[in-house]
Amino acid sequence: MTQIEETTHIDFPEISEVALKQIGSVKNSIEAPFLSMDKNGIKMQPQKKHNIVKYLKTRDQVSQIVVYPEWEGILAGIDGYSHLVVLYWAHKIPEKNRSIKQVHPKGRKELPKVGIFSTFSPARPNPLLMTVVELKGVKDNILEVTGLDAVDGSPVLDIKPFVREFYPQETTRIPAWMDGIVKEIRQLTE
Amino acid sequence: MTQIEETTHIDFPEISEVALKQIGSVKNSIEAPFLSMDKNGIKMQPQKKHNIVKYLKTRDQVSQIVVYPEWEGILAGIDGYSHLVVLYWAHKIPEKNRSIKQVHPKGRKELPKVGIFSTFSPARPNPLLMTVVELKGVKDNILEVTGLDAVDGSPVLDIKPFVREFYPQETTRIPAWMDGIVKEIRQLTE
Repeated sequence: MTQIEETTHIDFPEISEVALKQIGSVKNSIEAPFLSMDKNGIKMQPQKKHNIVKYLKTRDQVSQIVVYPEWEGILAGIDGYSHLVVLYWAHKIPEKNRSIKQVHPKGRKELPKVGIFSTFSPARPNPLLMTVVELKGVKDNILEVTGLDAVDGSPVLDIKPFVREFYPQETTRIPAWMDGIVKEIRQLTE
Repeated sequence: MTQIEETTHIDFPEISEVALKQIGSVKNSIEAPFLSMDKNGIKMQPQKKHNIVKYLKTRDQVSQIVVYPEWEGILAGIDGYSHLVVLYWAHKIPEKNRSIKQVHPKGRKELPKVGIFSTFSPARPNPLLMTVVELKGVKDNILEVTGLDAVDGSPVLDIKPFVREFYPQETTRIPAWMDGIVKEIRQLTE
């Protein structure tokens, strides 16, 4: 690691004037987040465990992304891609949960408590969630996609192409606890 | 494609109360965006072409992500990952460029004019940019990463783990014009 100069607050540009524009909305049958949150972190809603398995097993479930009509034309050419990156806002996350700094991933106490940026917890400083989806169809201002784990009504903020070459080509490394989760999901979906 | 019910404006939840929190800032030697923009779209700044080649050839250039001290603890465990997804705000994009709907990719008139969501243009309704970076080091509230093509001073909004298994495992498809760009970049970096 190179020498790092003394840094406290730099002159950050103000982004308070930056209003997010909701460009569309998710329509599907996912009614509530799979995780519940309190001020001490997140925990999986017990009654939702079944839903997760159900959801994982139905990754081919179709969601619609309805883009506001005033953005007409912004989807032109999007059917050239098989997969898209969808950025949306976790609008069900209460403001107070946006100051949580560390959690047990998925609320599971047996997993090490780690920083939010080491997790996919929706309780983040900016609850900007990102999912790579498969594009199944386009009709006017509506995309039909599979694999979108957003709650019904989630505000959509951005849609980007998925281009594999722009992701790491080399071997990547993840912590043991995340590797365990990946293996669990793989077992559940096999 | 399944039958889609009539949809105009739904009762979207208001997200106007949603203020983005700048959780940190990028520090590097990239001074200006590679593309300039006017109301008719984007064009590559002629004098910047050399810079792009230079940049592409120096992907191992180190950027720092300085996380505000008040978020102490939020990076715990992040060194377990070799790669991270960084979401940042394209703060150099003027507000008026956020209503552009279609562009010739990279401002190149020989490429088909497509919708913004089919491109990586920073002139988007919400200029939320996303880059997968390699984590080279962590010291207190500072991450050292390579591959971050953000301009110096860019506000950082979120950091997520990169977990390859959460990206498409199957073959993906991109349009011919994007495939051309991918091949160009590959040639420039070889």
